[in-house]
Amino acid sequence: MNNKAIQDQYPENYSHCYGCGRLNEDGLQIKTYWDGKESICSFKPHDNHTSMPKFVYGGLIASVIDCHSTATAAAATYQAEGRDFGSEPPIRFVTASLHVDYIKPTPIEGPLDLRSHIKEASGRRVTIVTELYVKGTLCAKGEVVAARLPSSME
Amino acid sequence: MNNKAIQDQYPENYSHCYGCGRLNEDGLQIKTYWDGKESICSFKPHDNHTSMPKFVYGGLIASVIDCHSTATAAAATYQAEGRDFGSEPPIRFVTASLHVDYIKPTPIEGPLDLRSHIKEASGRRVTIVTELYVKGTLCAKGEVVAARLPSSME
Repeated sequence: MNNKAIQDQYPENYSHCYGCGRLNEDGLQIKTYWDGKESICSFKPHDNHTSMPKFVYGGLIASVIDCHSTATAAAATYQAEGRDFGSEPPIRFVTASLHVDYIKPTPIEGPLDLRSHIKEASGRRVTIVTELYVKGTLCAKGEVVAARLPSSME
Repeated sequence: MNNKAIQDQYPENYSHCYGCGRLNEDGLQIKTYWDGKESICSFKPHDNHTSMPKFVYGGLIASVIDCHSTATAAAATYQAEGRDFGSEPPIRFVTASLHVDYIKPTPIEGPLDLRSHIKEASGRRVTIVTELYVKGTLCAKGEVVAARLPSSME
């Protein structure tokens, strides 16, 4: 497991995301770690991230799955190309589509523990599947199709 | 068009959502209006809701589509049952699944203009489709399956 978060190795111009940018001071600052096969993320919801009292609102779950997935796509692609993570030119993905199945109400105390792997990588598209747990209970599943940014934007 | 937002007619215990609760002071306070056939929502992203600079992060788009869709499901169901919106017992929906297709980068200046209709209503499940525009350009599409809360929770 690389002990530096993927998002903390993004170039500066990709570090302003409200979900995961280290330079977005008001943002969620989601952190993803990649172990060579899977990625993990642990996120503590804020007290006001409620849907009904005591439970997390769905938009937060979608947000965490989204940013965690595009980070996972980047890490897996660096690895597939035999490159060190963060080496130039940067490999960055954006979200083409996001799907979330909400399985159980998600306790606000969290933490949200996400575990993701690559389902498919084809051309410039990578599909990432995610399971989101709280204290060992599966609360949501995600599937993101991430699209690699063209070289002109890298 | 009812000139009072659907979310402003939710019972108090459903009004703490970070996305749309009128009692969540730090939240997004999304407002949905229903005209009998379609629902609309106009949301101005905050300056820090960025993905890359100048564009909206995907989690915000997912959040707005999510809350707007469950409100739309409630409004349409009150209407289908010939009841005044907000009348007791309350009809409330939670999100079973959320799907978003991100079509174009979404300008941060917004506003995000959403327009939704009911694709299908079957039993306790309602499927809502949404188009999200900025200044007339289609930037995202959403499809939410909303599940009606059981009577014991209404």
